[in-house]
Amino acid sequence: MQALEAILSDLLELQHDLTPSFVPSQATQPSALEFLRQVHTNFPVIYRAAALEWPAIDATSGRRWSRKYLLESLKHTTVSVAETPLGNADAPLGNLFVQPHTSNLPFSEFMDKLLDSDGDTVCYMQSQNNNMPTEFPQLVDDVEMDIPWATEALNSKPEAVNLWIGSSRSTTSLHKDPYENLHVQVLGQKVFKLISPAEHICVKESMLKKATYNKLSDGFELIIGTESQPWPTLDPDAIESTDFWQSKVRVIEVVLNPGDILYLPALWFHKVSQVSDADGLCCSVNYWYDMDFTGPLWPFANFVRSISNSLAGVEKDADIKDCVKDGNM
Amino acid sequence: MQALEAILSDLLELQHDLTPSFVPSQATQPSALEFLRQVHTNFPVIYRAAALEWPAIDATSGRRWSRKYLLESLKHTTVSVAETPLGNADAPLGNLFVQPHTSNLPFSEFMDKLLDSDGDTVCYMQSQNNNMPTEFPQLVDDVEMDIPWATEALNSKPEAVNLWIGSSRSTTSLHKDPYENLHVQVLGQKVFKLISPAEHICVKESMLKKATYNKLSDGFELIIGTESQPWPTLDPDAIESTDFWQSKVRVIEVVLNPGDILYLPALWFHKVSQVSDADGLCCSVNYWYDMDFTGPLWPFANFVRSISNSLAGVEKDADIKDCVKDGNM
Ligand SMILES: O=C(O)CCC(=O)C(=O)O
Ligand SMILES: O=C(O)CCC(=O)C(=O)O
Repeated sequence: MQALEAILSDLLELQHDLTPSFVPSQATQPSALEFLRQVHTNFPVIYRAAALEWPAIDATSGRRWSRKYLLESLKHTTVSVAETPLGNADAPLGNLFVQPHTSNLPFSEFMDKLLDSDGDTVCYMQSQNNNMPTEFPQLVDDVEMDIPWATEALNSKPEAVNLWIGSSRSTTSLHKDPYENLHVQVLGQKVFKLISPAEHICVKESMLKKATYNKLSDGFELIIGTESQPWPTLDPDAIESTDFWQSKVRVIEVVLNPGDILYLPALWFHKVSQVSDADGLCCSVNYWYDMDFTGPLWPFANFVRSISNSLAGVEKDADIKDCVKDGNM
Repeated sequence: MQALEAILSDLLELQHDLTPSFVPSQATQPSALEFLRQVHTNFPVIYRAAALEWPAIDATSGRRWSRKYLLESLKHTTVSVAETPLGNADAPLGNLFVQPHTSNLPFSEFMDKLLDSDGDTVCYMQSQNNNMPTEFPQLVDDVEMDIPWATEALNSKPEAVNLWIGSSRSTTSLHKDPYENLHVQVLGQKVFKLISPAEHICVKESMLKKATYNKLSDGFELIIGTESQPWPTLDPDAIESTDFWQSKVRVIEVVLNPGDILYLPALWFHKVSQVSDADGLCCSVNYWYDMDFTGPLWPFANFVRSISNSLAGVEKDADIKDCVKDGNM
């Protein structure tokens, strides 16, 4: 029997041979057919400046987002905010998977905390639950509620439209989502580190014990739960080149500027860091479209994951099974 | 380490859970976008009667193909014909992979042999080398030289357009091609038995010694070569239900009638049998479009193949490597 290591190495080599080592940029918006061809390749692309004329981004619109504009528009809005000591909501910490303390705050209070760059609390509005139409109706006309060529290509409206408001202090740890994703930068910059689904063996999935931050008057405590959760523990910003699989991984970096739209294909691993603008803000809106579960991508990603975890000796338990079904990790 | 058997069984189960157990039929031709969505799912579909108005098929055109029409149109044409004793060109025979005797015959002589249903030689015109435009210019206006919605969807003309002329006596053994395939039935019927790429473990790939039929005055002899060739040895018409993997395979049957277009996705295994029409003929034209090698399908199929062959103990040698690169098997 040929060693699994060799077969997985061949897979990484094939992936690297057949795809570019960078994310291509394109200056024009795609047609629906062009976009669907891109989705079919399951490879990322940036549509540069494709959203530059959205009111939220266009300086001449009178509705360009800024600290002042958002404070005025959302003065009666309460927001759900993730609070952590290190900007690490939903992230591995040693052998724990830590979840944030969640508070409901008046928008102005959230902004004060977010912009206090020395405070002991890092805030991130990252609720990822289709919050744009449900929690921010005042802002809906400043952006679009779908991306027309994607809606036409994929033959459905987005499942969720999410608003993200954060700062340089927050990072989203490496993970993947079972959605075709369009991520539109509005204010500041986002830096994505991307790894293809074929490279599962390199992301060091581990079973982590779930823990939740609890905010105290003078800091945070960690409440350690009983359940476990599989999660990729690789930090693409701290690759250990002496590690066999880490030395083989291809991390592709992209930087999004206001108006750029990143197509982030379903099941690609991504870590996301932020760069605040002059106001101290980093804002984006993303569109999650249902992925096709009947094509080769889903069985491929699950099969590679099973073989990789089997080789690496990652426990396979009920949690992992749920997570495979659920798709989110 | 979890047993590979269990992981491969899960993959089969996932494939069967997520896809239909039959090939859907559709009565209308797709738009380019609809067709590309189908290609993205890598699942077959039949566009019923989509070519019914082609001159070669339409009885009112004056150019409908028949024995008489073809004899007249091709009276000055020499054709390359596969000759075998059993209708088994490019097929497993015990531990051999047998290739046909190939003759160049005047078209009328080929027709005489083809229609002599008791003769000791089974003939099949199956050269698969873009023969339609190169060898049969007289027939080109009777069919189409591309399928417009496929050309638009895939953004390229077909790599090859092949004419197949045979009879009930020939069968094409189980194999796969690295092309998006549109197979258009013109005369008679073809019966396809289809198996998805995820089910590689079930097709019993084996290393077979290459052999070639040589025609003698009173029959055939087999010249056994020195090279070997990996080939699926499963006969979808003779599944052994007591065999573990054969008992799990899902074989999907489709029957094509004149005017039907089958979309046969890249890398699906297919066995093809024929039913002659009243003239004793079975004719079709197929269009091979380049598949996308950068998406998940190609690495998926190769990875599943490597794991399956490793589990089954199939030799991995230079031949297999070449064949993986080459794609044809
Ligand atoms: O922007 C972030 O912090 C994370 C974005 C993300 O994970 C996504 O768009 O799926
Ligand atoms: O029609 C046949 O005999 C075989 C067809 C085939 O293999 C194909 O269309 O790829």
